[in-house]
Amino acid sequence: MRDLSKDHRWFSLNTATVRRQGSLIEIVDACARHGVRAIDPWRDQVAAVGLKAAVKAVRDAGLELSGYCRGGMFPCDAGHRTDARDDNRRAVDEAVALGASCLILVVGGLPQYSRPGSAASKDLSAAQEQVADAIAELLDYARGARMPLAIEPLHPMYAADRACVNTMRHALDLCDRIDPARSGMLGIALDLYHTWWDHELYRQIGRCGRERMLAFHVCDWLVPTTDMLNDRGMMGDGVVDIPRARAAVEELGYSGYVEVELFSQRWWSLPMDEVISTCIERVKTVV
Amino acid sequence: MRDLSKDHRWFSLNTATVRRQGSLIEIVDACARHGVRAIDPWRDQVAAVGLKAAVKAVRDAGLELSGYCRGGMFPCDAGHRTDARDDNRRAVDEAVALGASCLILVVGGLPQYSRPGSAASKDLSAAQEQVADAIAELLDYARGARMPLAIEPLHPMYAADRACVNTMRHALDLCDRIDPARSGMLGIALDLYHTWWDHELYRQIGRCGRERMLAFHVCDWLVPTTDMLNDRGMMGDGVVDIPRARAAVEELGYSGYVEVELFSQRWWSLPMDEVISTCIERVKTVV
Repeated sequence: MRDLSKDHRWFSLNTATVRRQGSLIEIVDACARHGVRAIDPWRDQVAAVGLKAAVKAVRDAGLELSGYCRGGMFPCDAGHRTDARDDNRRAVDEAVALGASCLILVVGGLPQYSRPGSAASKDLSAAQEQVADAIAELLDYARGARMPLAIEPLHPMYAADRACVNTMRHALDLCDRIDPARSGMLGIALDLYHTWWDHELYRQIGRCGRERMLAFHVCDWLVPTTDMLNDRGMMGDGVVDIPRARAAVEELGYSGYVEVELFSQRWWSLPMDEVISTCIERVKTVV
Repeated sequence: MRDLSKDHRWFSLNTATVRRQGSLIEIVDACARHGVRAIDPWRDQVAAVGLKAAVKAVRDAGLELSGYCRGGMFPCDAGHRTDARDDNRRAVDEAVALGASCLILVVGGLPQYSRPGSAASKDLSAAQEQVADAIAELLDYARGARMPLAIEPLHPMYAADRACVNTMRHALDLCDRIDPARSGMLGIALDLYHTWWDHELYRQIGRCGRERMLAFHVCDWLVPTTDMLNDRGMMGDGVVDIPRARAAVEELGYSGYVEVELFSQRWWSLPMDEVISTCIERVKTVV
């Protein structure tokens, strides 16, 4: 297990963590001030400044991208299928332009939430089948672009509206089915916020293996959690045994970034520099 | 699959659904007015009127009990272990006195939430091991009292503070380990609110089998869910495919009650008779 206490070279900032405090350009500038080496930007943040300006800012700052958020939202009715496919191909292209290490996939829930305007359905199994088919199709495109796809299992409380893949087991079942050869082009983004509760977590991390562990995201689970979407905790403020999970991930041979991704009204209300400093300090002390 | 549309003989009311509107005695009276044949009362509601009065009210009304809520909250530190054990034995005794078909177990999360005052811990695996040991110990007592124990997997959003058993797979693993002979004395309370999202749900219902399917609870998952604890939906108002799940449960040979359990600020704010009428109408039409 790596010693993270000496510096923050393995810290990556998911830019949603400070999305209320400034534009992507301002976030990149702040990263330069704090000696941050990597980020994981969101598509809406990139779109807001323009892809070209985003690419230039990232290159000028010498930043790596520990991922690009996000592709997915696959389930939809027939009328939205082409849009969903094209939208995901554009996400792959943007990830390539930005030099991301992988495209994070938040796979979507029921069609009416995943692609608004789609006919409503309660058939979660059908949505899960659509996800499998759509990832297989996107993977063909992603292979051509040499952009790995990282399925992110989301917490089950998001099953209806954000992602109907909610466990490492399910995500790895999809990897086995779609990429049985373990080509390295399809894997997992493991976010502890979504998965910490799972009694199979450690077994499934072991099953995942190095070649499928494409990204590792951390924050903390607060008790009580007052908002299902925007009350994630800063590492150390909640109940997740983060070092144990990091040890298991690194045991696989994972030596990539530890990405901090917080959606939090509380942390969005504080100055960007304070949030980044706190992330760095916590990564060094409690992660 | 049974036809529930003709009458409500298989409807059971979990009394938490109307706990703000009246005492257990008043709820029992309302059940008589509505021709309800079964309830599942909570320990605090029984304690508020006294066990003796509760037993008399239930008997006088000719009500069956589709369960008794609840034993559990097992994880604790050494100083609270005797209390936790004795408390659970009393729950078994009360269930026997009331003539319940089973004691529902909400197993508890981390010790500081499960048994307040316990030393804080982030070790969820240790809590899960305590749960296994405590259920095994309680089962010895329950066998003597001839009171089946029903492990209720709770939604993963309650893993820290209410139950660290969050999937049918985990609950059935515990059953296999503690009662490999499938004696009928240890099984599952399947509540769709907690389990509807699970991509393994139907596989695990099949694995469960008739002898371990001790209770079946329904309500609905709302989108958005505005409160993690008290925003459950009335059947039909959310996204859960309840008939499909009921069909799978009855395919096992389950022929017991369909219990409605809602924690909802909205439904608690309405008159008791209106809530019970609505439960009955929905069970007949969308369950």
